Amino acid sequence: MPTLVAPYVDEMIQMRRRLHRYPEIAWTEFVTTSIIVERVRELGFKTVLGKKLFNEEFVLGRDPEVVKDAQDRARAHGVSEEILKELEGYTGCLAVWETGRPGPVTALRFDIDCIPVQENRTDANEAHRDGYESTRDGLMHACGHDGHASMGMTVAHWVHDHADQLCGTIKIIFQPAEEGTKGACGIAHSNNLDDVDYLIGGHVNIADKVHDVSIVRKGFLATTKMNASFTGLAAHAGGSPELGRNALMAACSAAMQIMGIARHGQGATSVNVGVIHAGEGRNVVPAHAGMEIEVRGSNAEINAYMQDRAEAMVRGSAMSYGVDYRLDVVGKAEDVVSDEELVQAIVEAAKAVDTVEDIHIVESCGGSEDHSLLMHAVQKHGGKAVFFGYGGNDTVAHSALFQIQDTESLPIGLEIFVRLLIKLNTNA
Amino acid sequence: MPTLVAPYVDEMIQMRRRLHRYPEIAWTEFVTTSIIVERVRELGFKTVLGKKLFNEEFVLGRDPEVVKDAQDRARAHGVSEEILKELEGYTGCLAVWETGRPGPVTALRFDIDCIPVQENRTDANEAHRDGYESTRDGLMHACGHDGHASMGMTVAHWVHDHADQLCGTIKIIFQPAEEGTKGACGIAHSNNLDDVDYLIGGHVNIADKVHDVSIVRKGFLATTKMNASFTGLAAHAGGSPELGRNALMAACSAAMQIMGIARHGQGATSVNVGVIHAGEGRNVVPAHAGMEIEVRGSNAEINAYMQDRAEAMVRGSAMSYGVDYRLDVVGKAEDVVSDEELVQAIVEAAKAVDTVEDIHIVESCGGSEDHSLLMHAVQKHGGKAVFFGYGGNDTVAHSALFQIQDTESLPIGLEIFVRLLIKLNTNA
Amino acid sequence: MPTLVAPYVDEMIQMRRRLHRYPEIAWTEFVTTSIIVERVRELGFKTVLGKKLFNEEFVLGRDPEVVKDAQDRARAHGVSEEILKELEGYTGCLAVWETGRPGPVTALRFDIDCIPVQENRTDANEAHRDGYESTRDGLMHACGHDGHASMGMTVAHWVHDHADQLCGTIKIIFQPAEEGTKGACGIAHSNNLDDVDYLIGGHVNIADKVHDVSIVRKGFLATTKMNASFTGLAAHAGGSPELGRNALMAACSAAMQIMGIARHGQGATSVNVGVIHAGEGRNVVPAHAGMEIEVRGSNAEINAYMQDRAEAMVRGSAMSYGVDYRLDVVGKAEDVVSDEELVQAIVEAAKAVDTVEDIHIVESCGGSEDHSLLMHAVQKHGGKAVFFGYGGNDTVAHSALFQIQDTESLPIGLEIFVRLLIKLNTNA
Amino acid sequence: MPTLVAPYVDEMIQMRRRLHRYPEIAWTEFVTTSIIVERVRELGFKTVLGKKLFNEEFVLGRDPEVVKDAQDRARAHGVSEEILKELEGYTGCLAVWETGRPGPVTALRFDIDCIPVQENRTDANEAHRDGYESTRDGLMHACGHDGHASMGMTVAHWVHDHADQLCGTIKIIFQPAEEGTKGACGIAHSNNLDDVDYLIGGHVNIADKVHDVSIVRKGFLATTKMNASFTGLAAHAGGSPELGRNALMAACSAAMQIMGIARHGQGATSVNVGVIHAGEGRNVVPAHAGMEIEVRGSNAEINAYMQDRAEAMVRGSAMSYGVDYRLDVVGKAEDVVSDEELVQAIVEAAKAVDTVEDIHIVESCGGSEDHSLLMHAVQKHGGKAVFFGYGGNDTVAHSALFQIQDTESLPIGLEIFVRLLIKLNTNA
Repeated sequence: MPTLVAPYVDEMIQMRRRLHRYPEIAWTEFVTTSIIVERVRELGFKTVLGKKLFNEEFVLGRDPEVVKDAQDRARAHGVSEEILKELEGYTGCLAVWETGRPGPVTALRFDIDCIPVQENRTDANEAHRDGYESTRDGLMHACGHDGHASMGMTVAHWVHDHADQLCGTIKIIFQPAEEGTKGACGIAHSNNLDDVDYLIGGHVNIADKVHDVSIVRKGFLATTKMNASFTGLAAHAGGSPELGRNALMAACSAAMQIMGIARHGQGATSVNVGVIHAGEGRNVVPAHAGMEIEVRGSNAEINAYMQDRAEAMVRGSAMSYGVDYRLDVVGKAEDVVSDEELVQAIVEAAKAVDTVEDIHIVESCGGSEDHSLLMHAVQKHGGKAVFFGYGGNDTVAHSALFQIQDTESLPIGLEIFVRLLIKLNTNA
Repeated sequence: MPTLVAPYVDEMIQMRRRLHRYPEIAWTEFVTTSIIVERVRELGFKTVLGKKLFNEEFVLGRDPEVVKDAQDRARAHGVSEEILKELEGYTGCLAVWETGRPGPVTALRFDIDCIPVQENRTDANEAHRDGYESTRDGLMHACGHDGHASMGMTVAHWVHDHADQLCGTIKIIFQPAEEGTKGACGIAHSNNLDDVDYLIGGHVNIADKVHDVSIVRKGFLATTKMNASFTGLAAHAGGSPELGRNALMAACSAAMQIMGIARHGQGATSVNVGVIHAGEGRNVVPAHAGMEIEVRGSNAEINAYMQDRAEAMVRGSAMSYGVDYRLDVVGKAEDVVSDEELVQAIVEAAKAVDTVEDIHIVESCGGSEDHSLLMHAVQKHGGKAVFFGYGGNDTVAHSALFQIQDTESLPIGLEIFVRLLIKLNTNA
Repeated sequence: MPTLVAPYVDEMIQMRRRLHRYPEIAWTEFVTTSIIVERVRELGFKTVLGKKLFNEEFVLGRDPEVVKDAQDRARAHGVSEEILKELEGYTGCLAVWETGRPGPVTALRFDIDCIPVQENRTDANEAHRDGYESTRDGLMHACGHDGHASMGMTVAHWVHDHADQLCGTIKIIFQPAEEGTKGACGIAHSNNLDDVDYLIGGHVNIADKVHDVSIVRKGFLATTKMNASFTGLAAHAGGSPELGRNALMAACSAAMQIMGIARHGQGATSVNVGVIHAGEGRNVVPAHAGMEIEVRGSNAEINAYMQDRAEAMVRGSAMSYGVDYRLDVVGKAEDVVSDEELVQAIVEAAKAVDTVEDIHIVESCGGSEDHSLLMHAVQKHGGKAVFFGYGGNDTVAHSALFQIQDTESLPIGLEIFVRLLIKLNTNA
Repeated sequence: MPTLVAPYVDEMIQMRRRLHRYPEIAWTEFVTTSIIVERVRELGFKTVLGKKLFNEEFVLGRDPEVVKDAQDRARAHGVSEEILKELEGYTGCLAVWETGRPGPVTALRFDIDCIPVQENRTDANEAHRDGYESTRDGLMHACGHDGHASMGMTVAHWVHDHADQLCGTIKIIFQPAEEGTKGACGIAHSNNLDDVDYLIGGHVNIADKVHDVSIVRKGFLATTKMNASFTGLAAHAGGSPELGRNALMAACSAAMQIMGIARHGQGATSVNVGVIHAGEGRNVVPAHAGMEIEVRGSNAEINAYMQDRAEAMVRGSAMSYGVDYRLDVVGKAEDVVSDEELVQAIVEAAKAVDTVEDIHIVESCGGSEDHSLLMHAVQKHGGKAVFFGYGGNDTVAHSALFQIQDTESLPIGLEIFVRLLIKLNTNA
């Protein structure tokens, strides 16, 4: 048991399991957010909520209809009208602790949303065995953000308890909608990071083994997530196909083209058309098609190249089939480049955690994280930022079988955050 | 009001409206079938039900899971265990009237299933105004089969009342699952048509105007309806796409190829990929894809050519992407070629109906009808067959706005059937 | 031997064989044209040549570079500077005979170009056996236009000899560039047909057998021939593919799309991408691609629909791949609808030819003829037009094995033209 | 002027310019080979020629028809029957110098073929200004192999002159057909490398500037070059398209699929369909199509993955369109991984060359070299191998504008080879 945080581990684990039972997907985390807001206010934090947390222009992948339903559900679940009003339809919370003493502004970022996956309901799953599995069909904390949110609240508790030793300002960001890289963009373009000197984000199960720590020096890919929809004209496919405009074919053509985008010679790229739903019936010229696209690149420029080409192909295919199209960016991340000062600070902190066994530096990865957008925002004005992982096992994130070993992995992450605060925000 | 059938019109209209309130899609018509079976037995008909009605090997597009749910629903709706047992999971009914006097075997065919369309619930819709609209969300008798089933039962009533004037045998086929051309194939390959000398099928709203009759000499297209499914391997699209096998791309490639099948120089053809659903998530190499395909041709050979080419393209695309595939024929119809003896008999009958205004002979059409399979089965052993239409208006079949003018159009159809029975099965 | 034209048959056969030895493809028929011009002038016809024969705006598929080379070749072959100057780079000739007596203007049309096919040089080929095979490698009169041109000159001879029996005006059109349906468009839009009352065109080997006559009432398809070219950017495919713009892929994508154009429910259509040449080298992002496209439809509207869709797909595919494109209409024909007056006149004429065995009326066909453009031009102002075939055998037009039986088939065609002139342009 | 090789520079330059005037493409270098064979024999080398130089089973991309024409051309150009007989149709030469003293076997490799590019014939081109430009239309030493071959012969001269100071065996490989990575495979699988301890290959214009040296530690990609051909059935596209089998569409479909192969997450890849030629005429269902494909991968396994997927797509597309296909591997290379011992030896040698300005180590590159196959063959049995570059400027290899500055760059390469021989094959 990591020594510094031992008194806080149990509350973190209990909270994580409570959140695990009630997962909420991107932009609908009203119950989760209300728990967080209540808790951090109770501890004495100020909160930044609703439209003050985001630059609305840059909010991605948020469907007002879905949000409205989620508000109703939260209301039915006991969330107060008062807090719903404060949230203004936007989930997430920035909790701010001002020590009143000079010192840096350090931001810690925790994401809070779940995945649309049906949890494995057999005894192979600890959450099932121990009775804390998801109570919501088709939804599951299958990427560990329940652990992150809980860890953020626990750090808050530690800050409250050690307030008189701290200096500067501590900002704890509870970010919604990380899945699909939707949520960070609006925060990154708000003014909430303008004064941040240090930004630290972490993720469970990115390290190889349960007692390992992995610090991401670089390698997470920039990415853009896009939804394309095509709208044509229905017609009887047997009798008068010429009256139709075929949205399904526009989608198929775009998919064929997009998967064949000429790759960039200067770095890694990837592209996927993950989903197509098209057509109304076997004997009808299909009038509607939707597709989910993502591109990635090892930096913003390469990613932008991929995005440009994909957009041209959606546009061109729509023109070929004489259909209308709509293309929405619904998620976005940059590449991750951590500042060496913080990379080393985490190495040092991790070495000090008695349960840590191995420490790795990661330099390449096919994945993406929208923490990168917050990092770039901080780095742009001269702040430092970092991303690290802790804990790990063989279960696959985003799958029904995903599990974290919360009692072992989460305390490591917690103590690293605490040790960084001690390093950065005490005058010791 | 057509004079011969005037006493029966009201019961036909009432029954049609009753059926309209409770539409059932292909292979699930248990409530409808139980109404029919009860009625024709009450009138003294023998019935052929369940596995005796079909050659199971040739039953198309029937999903046992869906049937099971439908049986439960029917049970809950009050259909007796007894009749469900008799039906053996197969909807539809053949009602047989043997006069005991020598004479031809004449079969009349009526289809009974509905369409998966949400009925228009505004006052523009007579069924809404008059309170007989569909009570089942997303289902609607939007092709008039409620009228057909009702007309079949009404013909049965007339047969019962005029039994002593009739000779030979009268078979009334209440066919399930016409939509998607699924239901006729199993009947066509059963032995129920082996003794049929005359087969007559009709359809409401095929004629131009409400008081018109259209006799289809030829032109309905042979067709095959197929479902293709591709099964690949999921993989993280960013990190290890090479581990995936892309079912979505196989489907898109097959769709591009199939729509470009070289058309046949010897007759009309059509092809449609009406529906594609593929993929599990934006960032996952898609492991599953399903597509709905139909081909048509102006005769069986041309249709077979189209089907062969489409099958090769599904197979080839699966091979290209290293995915498994499955291709199921879920519907089938032949071209319609009516026998001139019966074409002329209908012309004559229609002329005798006082409300008929115009009579047309149809020789070309982009649509298909699985009555054609029954016709071919009868014609193969020397019997005669025909297909005709009655009534019509501007509403589009299969749409939410479809309506028939039952009080005007159905009596015309009814009287034509009755006049044909008089011509064929009386010794007058 | 058809009695009326017996004295002219031998000169027709000799001329046909002379032309057969020196085939010239579309828009390069300078030697052929000079032979025609000399001959018809010798007989006393006035000639319309060069830019007076065509509306230059509507000239299709003519490459000035190719024409220039052909002029040089013709010069080397002995064609005089004088006539080359008169031709102004445009092949073909309109020969006009004005009788000075009132009467209709009757135009007879003969096409004169060859096919880019290497003639079969074995004894199976009569032209080889009898020493009149093509002297130009890769070129062959494989569609019988040598016979047509020769027949036109022979009709001219007959007109000269029977001038005092004739009334009205006789226009003999020697049309270049029928192959690829290029040549007629410019003539159709000139003023040379403004006064034409009757237009008659014929073709050898369209009838079933050598002594048969086929009159085309309708069924030849309207068509548009298009060349698409895409211009992208070359780049090293291994090192910097992102710098390229892939013209080959634009062509492949367009081909896939075009072959899948939704067919027209109101009539016959066809589409073909017959040729693609693309790319500069295996390891270079392809910067150039060219494709040859044709669409057809059973009337102008249906053909225009096909053309519009194909154009959109070329445009859309260019946009998808970020390449430039160029789309040229290089050939065009309308559907053939012959006037019944002339259909019957040919039936009557054919019946009078003693060697004719069978007479057919054609009403459907997958092919196209640009004579149709001249027909539409004449019909637009109230003139009558017709197209007919004579002679036939099992050899396939446009193939190396094509042969006509000139001594049998051509006299039939000749006598029909002459009998039509007697019917239309004598006061008998 | 590099001091050690100063006396040999002029003959190298003159020979390079002589070869530049007479470029020969892959597998046709009979004139070049005869020059080399004569020269190295004159100097006292033994030669390995013809089928002894290659394992015929592994010879790639060699067309016997093309070879036959090249032999005739060489004969006409004065190459003796005797040497043509010795060559047995295979170009290239292995020159062997056995010192008779114990010591390592060191192989130096020089490639000798040209590129199918038309040389720039303006004064901007030194070869034009100085009168040594290509005398063969459409062919050019546009990748500097003229310099390589000449350098190989000059090294041979130096070996001859310094024979008494050398120990071990020196093998000078004059490899044909490097372009398209065709020639090395057959040598790599022969027994000629079985005893090689050190293998050194070099290339002009790979370094950045004219006085630079670049040593390739790793990064050249493994590659496979493939030709696919599809054979279908021609048919009239308007009249009977159903009788055709469309080879063009199979090629387009394969191209669309191949460009979209899911890329490998474990390393760099590239893929190109560089050339398609398909179809016989606009109105004919295309019966023939050929395409040139290349795949690359950062190691053999990744390249094999790309090749496997491409092959499946060719096969699958052929199946989709019912056409036959043929797929030939016509070129192959492995990734380059140089042995550190030789990397350092070249660094040291380069430092000793007085005209060298900069020395770079290359670790990534999008290109490929079939020297890699020879390297792998040597490394498999424990030998060491390396690849380096010398000289460079802004002209682009394989382009009409390519130039090398032979008097500056070639002497650097020459002296490095000589210094390596001194290091490895003297007892000093």
